[in-house]
Amino acid sequence: MSGVNLADKLGQFTAHWQPHIVAGYNGNDIMVVKVQGAFNWHSHADTDDFFMVLQGEIDIEMHDRTVTLKQGEVFVVPAGVEHRPVARTEAHLMLIEPSGTPNTGDAQTAATKPRI
Amino acid sequence: MSGVNLADKLGQFTAHWQPHIVAGYNGNDIMVVKVQGAFNWHSHADTDDFFMVLQGEIDIEMHDRTVTLKQGEVFVVPAGVEHRPVARTEAHLMLIEPSGTPNTGDAQTAATKPRI
Repeated sequence: MSGVNLADKLGQFTAHWQPHIVAGYNGNDIMVVKVQGAFNWHSHADTDDFFMVLQGEIDIEMHDRTVTLKQGEVFVVPAGVEHRPVARTEAHLMLIEPSGTPNTGDAQTAATKPRI
Repeated sequence: MSGVNLADKLGQFTAHWQPHIVAGYNGNDIMVVKVQGAFNWHSHADTDDFFMVLQGEIDIEMHDRTVTLKQGEVFVVPAGVEHRPVARTEAHLMLIEPSGTPNTGDAQTAATKPRI
Protein backbone atom coordinates (compact mmCIF):
# COMPACT_ATOMS: atom_id res chain seq x y z
CA MET A 1 0.00 0.00 0.00
CA SER A 2 2.07 2.88 -1.33
CA GLY A 3 1.88 5.63 -3.89
CA VAL A 4 2.41 4.88 -7.57
CA ASN A 5 4.69 7.18 -9.56
CA LEU A 6 3.34 6.93 -13.10
CA ALA A 7 6.51 8.24 -14.76
CA ASP A 8 8.59 5.65 -12.89
CA LYS A 9 6.25 2.91 -14.08
CA LEU A 10 6.44 4.17 -17.68
CA GLY A 11 10.23 3.99 -17.41
CA GLN A 12 10.03 0.24 -16.88
CA PHE A 13 9.00 -0.71 -20.44
CA THR A 14 9.28 0.46 -24.03
CA ALA A 15 6.60 -1.46 -25.99
CA HIS A 16 3.79 0.48 -27.60
CA TRP A 17 0.09 -0.37 -27.11
CA GLN A 18 0.94 -2.63 -24.16
CA PRO A 19 -1.03 -1.48 -21.12
CA HIS A 20 0.60 -2.18 -17.75
CA ILE A 21 -1.54 -2.37 -14.62
CA VAL A 22 -0.24 -0.16 -11.80
CA ALA A 23 -3.17 -0.08 -9.36
CA GLY A 24 -6.75 -1.20 -8.87
CA TYR A 25 -9.93 0.71 -8.09
CA ASN A 26 -13.24 -1.05 -7.41
CA GLY A 27 -12.61 -3.83 -9.93
CA ASN A 28 -11.05 -1.50 -12.48
CA ASP A 29 -7.45 -1.58 -13.66
CA ILE A 30 -5.48 1.65 -13.47
CA MET A 31 -2.97 1.33 -16.32
CA VAL A 32 -0.18 3.20 -18.04
CA VAL A 33 0.63 2.70 -21.70
CA LYS A 34 3.00 4.09 -24.33
CA VAL A 35 1.42 4.63 -27.72
CA GLN A 36 2.67 5.58 -31.16
CA GLY A 37 0.95 5.31 -34.53
CA ALA A 38 -2.64 4.22 -35.07
CA PHE A 39 -4.43 1.54 -33.04
CA ASN A 40 -7.31 -0.48 -34.47
CA TRP A 41 -10.89 0.72 -34.64
CA HIS A 42 -12.81 -0.90 -31.79
CA SER A 43 -15.46 -0.40 -29.16
CA HIS A 44 -16.34 -1.78 -25.76
CA ALA A 45 -20.01 -2.69 -25.58
CA ASP A 46 -20.21 -2.76 -21.80
CA THR A 47 -17.84 -0.10 -20.54
CA ASP A 48 -16.72 3.46 -20.90
CA ASP A 49 -13.03 3.92 -21.70
CA PHE A 50 -11.02 6.48 -19.70
CA PHE A 51 -7.99 8.19 -21.27
CA MET A 52 -5.64 10.73 -19.66
CA VAL A 53 -2.59 12.05 -21.48
CA LEU A 54 0.48 12.15 -19.23
CA GLN A 55 2.94 13.15 -21.95
CA GLY A 56 2.59 14.03 -25.63
CA GLU A 57 -0.64 14.28 -27.59
CA ILE A 58 -3.15 11.85 -29.08
CA ASP A 59 -6.20 11.94 -31.29
CA ILE A 60 -9.19 9.83 -30.34
CA GLU A 61 -10.84 9.32 -33.71
CA MET A 62 -14.55 8.51 -33.67
CA HIS A 63 -16.77 8.26 -36.72
CA ASP A 64 -18.41 11.64 -36.17
CA ARG A 65 -15.52 13.61 -34.64
CA THR A 66 -11.93 13.54 -33.49
CA VAL A 67 -10.96 14.63 -29.98
CA THR A 68 -7.35 15.81 -29.62
CA LEU A 69 -5.90 15.38 -26.13
CA LYS A 70 -2.76 17.03 -24.81
CA GLN A 71 -0.87 16.51 -21.57
CA GLY A 72 -3.16 16.93 -18.57
CA GLU A 73 -6.31 16.29 -20.58
CA VAL A 74 -8.91 13.58 -20.00
CA PHE A 75 -11.51 12.01 -22.26
CA VAL A 76 -14.00 9.22 -21.63
CA VAL A 77 -15.17 7.28 -24.69
CA PRO A 78 -18.73 6.19 -23.93
CA ALA A 79 -19.55 2.48 -23.99
CA GLY A 80 -20.35 1.24 -27.47
CA VAL A 81 -18.73 4.14 -29.34
CA GLU A 82 -16.24 2.93 -31.93
CA HIS A 83 -12.93 4.73 -31.68
CA ARG A 84 -9.33 4.63 -32.80
CA PRO A 85 -6.52 6.22 -30.79
CA VAL A 86 -3.76 7.73 -32.93
CA ALA A 87 -0.44 9.26 -31.80
CA ARG A 88 1.80 10.95 -34.36
CA THR A 89 4.72 10.72 -31.95
CA GLU A 90 5.09 8.67 -28.78
CA ALA A 91 2.61 9.59 -26.08
CA HIS A 92 2.13 8.29 -22.55
CA LEU A 93 -1.35 7.66 -21.19
CA MET A 94 -3.17 6.57 -18.07
CA LEU A 95 -6.11 4.29 -18.85
CA ILE A 96 -8.92 2.98 -16.66
CA GLU A 97 -11.03 0.00 -17.66
CA PRO A 98 -12.82 -2.74 -15.74
CA SER A 99 -10.42 -5.62 -15.07
CA GLY A 100 -10.48 -8.08 -17.95
CA THR A 101 -11.55 -5.58 -20.63
CA PRO A 102 -9.78 -6.48 -23.91
CA ASN A 103 -7.81 -3.43 -25.10
CA THR A 104 -8.74 -4.13 -28.72
CA GLY A 105 -12.40 -4.71 -27.89
CA ASP A 106 -11.87 -8.39 -28.78
CA ALA A 107 -10.50 -11.03 -26.42
CA GLN A 108 -8.91 -12.86 -29.36
CA THR A 109 -6.59 -10.02 -30.24
CA ALA A 110 -6.19 -8.30 -26.88
CA ALA A 111 -2.81 -7.63 -25.30
CA THR A 112 -2.10 -9.21 -21.97
CA LYS A 113 -1.79 -6.59 -19.25
CA PRO A 114 1.14 -7.24 -16.96
CA ARG A 115 1.08 -5.74 -13.49
CA ILE A 116 4.14 -3.66 -12.66
CA MET B 1 -18.18 15.01 -26.07
CA SER B 2 -14.80 16.73 -25.91
CA GLY B 3 -11.56 16.53 -23.98
CA VAL B 4 -11.32 17.94 -20.47
CA ASN B 5 -8.32 20.10 -19.60
CA LEU B 6 -7.90 19.57 -15.87
CA ALA B 7 -5.80 22.71 -15.32
CA ASP B 8 -8.44 24.81 -17.07
CA LYS B 9 -11.11 23.31 -14.82
CA LEU B 10 -9.01 24.00 -11.72
CA GLY B 11 -8.71 27.61 -12.84
CA GLN B 12 -12.48 28.02 -12.51
CA PHE B 13 -12.68 27.94 -8.72
CA THR B 14 -10.63 28.72 -5.61
CA ALA B 15 -12.39 26.91 -2.73
CA HIS B 16 -10.51 24.17 -0.92
CA TRP B 17 -11.97 20.68 -0.32
CA GLN B 18 -14.73 21.32 -2.84
CA PRO B 19 -14.64 18.58 -5.50
CA HIS B 20 -15.91 19.61 -8.93
CA ILE B 21 -17.14 16.95 -11.36
CA VAL B 22 -15.53 17.21 -14.80
CA ALA B 23 -16.44 13.87 -16.43
CA GLY B 24 -18.13 10.55 -15.78
CA TYR B 25 -16.91 6.97 -16.16
CA ASN B 26 -19.23 3.99 -15.64
CA GLY B 27 -21.20 5.64 -12.84
CA ASN B 28 -18.14 7.21 -11.27
CA ASP B 29 -17.43 10.92 -11.00
CA ILE B 30 -14.09 12.17 -12.31
CA MET B 31 -13.38 15.23 -10.15
CA VAL B 32 -10.78 17.90 -9.58
CA VAL B 33 -10.26 19.51 -6.19
CA LYS B 34 -7.97 22.06 -4.55
CA VAL B 35 -6.85 21.13 -1.06
CA GLN B 36 -4.93 22.85 1.70
CA GLY B 37 -4.62 21.94 5.35
CA ALA B 38 -6.05 18.82 6.97
CA PHE B 39 -9.34 17.19 6.02
CA ASN B 40 -11.36 15.10 8.47
CA TRP B 41 -10.64 11.48 9.25
CA HIS B 42 -13.15 9.36 7.34
CA SER B 43 -13.67 6.16 5.39
CA HIS B 44 -15.95 4.89 2.65
CA ALA B 45 -17.37 1.50 3.57
CA ASP B 46 -18.38 0.56 0.04
CA THR B 47 -15.79 2.07 -2.27
CA ASP B 48 -12.13 2.54 -2.93
CA ASP B 49 -10.99 6.16 -3.15
CA PHE B 50 -8.74 7.18 -6.06
CA PHE B 51 -6.29 10.09 -5.65
CA MET B 52 -3.92 11.54 -8.25
CA VAL B 53 -1.80 14.60 -7.53
CA LEU B 54 -1.81 17.08 -10.43
CA GLN B 55 0.15 19.80 -8.65
CA GLY B 56 1.83 20.04 -5.25
CA GLU B 57 2.10 17.31 -2.65
CA ILE B 58 -0.23 15.66 -0.14
CA ASP B 59 -0.04 13.15 2.65
CA ILE B 60 -2.70 10.49 2.91
CA GLU B 61 -2.60 9.69 6.60
CA MET B 62 -3.89 6.28 7.66
CA HIS B 63 -3.71 4.81 11.13
CA ASP B 64 -0.83 2.48 10.31
CA ARG B 65 1.10 4.56 7.77
CA THR B 66 1.24 7.80 5.82
CA VAL B 67 1.57 7.81 2.03
CA THR B 68 3.12 10.97 0.57
CA LEU B 69 2.07 11.75 -2.99
CA LYS B 70 3.78 14.17 -5.34
CA GLN B 71 2.75 15.43 -8.78
CA GLY B 72 2.11 12.52 -11.14
CA GLU B 73 1.54 10.04 -8.35
CA VAL B 74 -1.56 7.95 -7.71
CA PHE B 75 -2.88 6.20 -4.63
CA VAL B 76 -6.06 4.22 -4.05
CA VAL B 77 -7.34 4.09 -0.48
CA PRO B 78 -9.06 0.71 -0.12
CA ALA B 79 -12.72 0.64 0.89
CA GLY B 80 -13.19 0.82 4.64
CA VAL B 81 -9.73 2.21 5.44
CA GLU B 82 -9.92 5.34 7.54
CA HIS B 83 -7.80 8.13 6.12
CA ARG B 84 -7.11 11.84 6.34
CA PRO B 85 -5.69 13.84 3.43
CA VAL B 86 -3.34 16.64 4.49
CA ALA B 87 -1.68 19.29 2.31
CA ARG B 88 0.88 21.66 3.86
CA THR B 89 0.49 24.02 0.90
CA GLU B 90 -2.20 24.11 -1.77
CA ALA B 91 -2.31 21.01 -3.92
CA HIS B 92 -4.49 20.08 -6.90
CA LEU B 93 -5.90 16.57 -7.21
CA MET B 94 -7.95 14.40 -9.51
CA LEU B 95 -10.37 12.17 -7.59
CA ILE B 96 -12.54 9.26 -8.72
CA GLU B 97 -15.45 8.00 -6.66
CA PRO B 98 -18.80 6.42 -7.49
CA SER B 99 -21.38 9.13 -8.12
CA GLY B 100 -23.06 10.12 -4.88
CA THR B 101 -20.17 9.18 -2.57
CA PRO B 102 -20.00 11.73 0.28
CA ASN B 103 -16.52 13.28 0.31
CA THR B 104 -16.44 13.26 4.11
CA GLY B 105 -17.71 9.69 4.34
CA ASP B 106 -20.95 11.07 5.79
CA ALA B 107 -23.87 12.41 3.76
CA GLN B 108 -24.69 14.89 6.56
CA THR B 109 -21.40 16.76 6.26
CA ALA B 110 -20.52 16.13 2.61
CA ALA B 111 -19.78 18.92 0.17
CA THR B 112 -22.02 19.22 -2.84
CA LYS B 113 -20.10 18.47 -6.03
CA PRO B 114 -20.89 20.94 -8.80
CA ARG B 115 -20.28 19.90 -12.38
CA ILE B 116 -18.06 22.26 -14.33
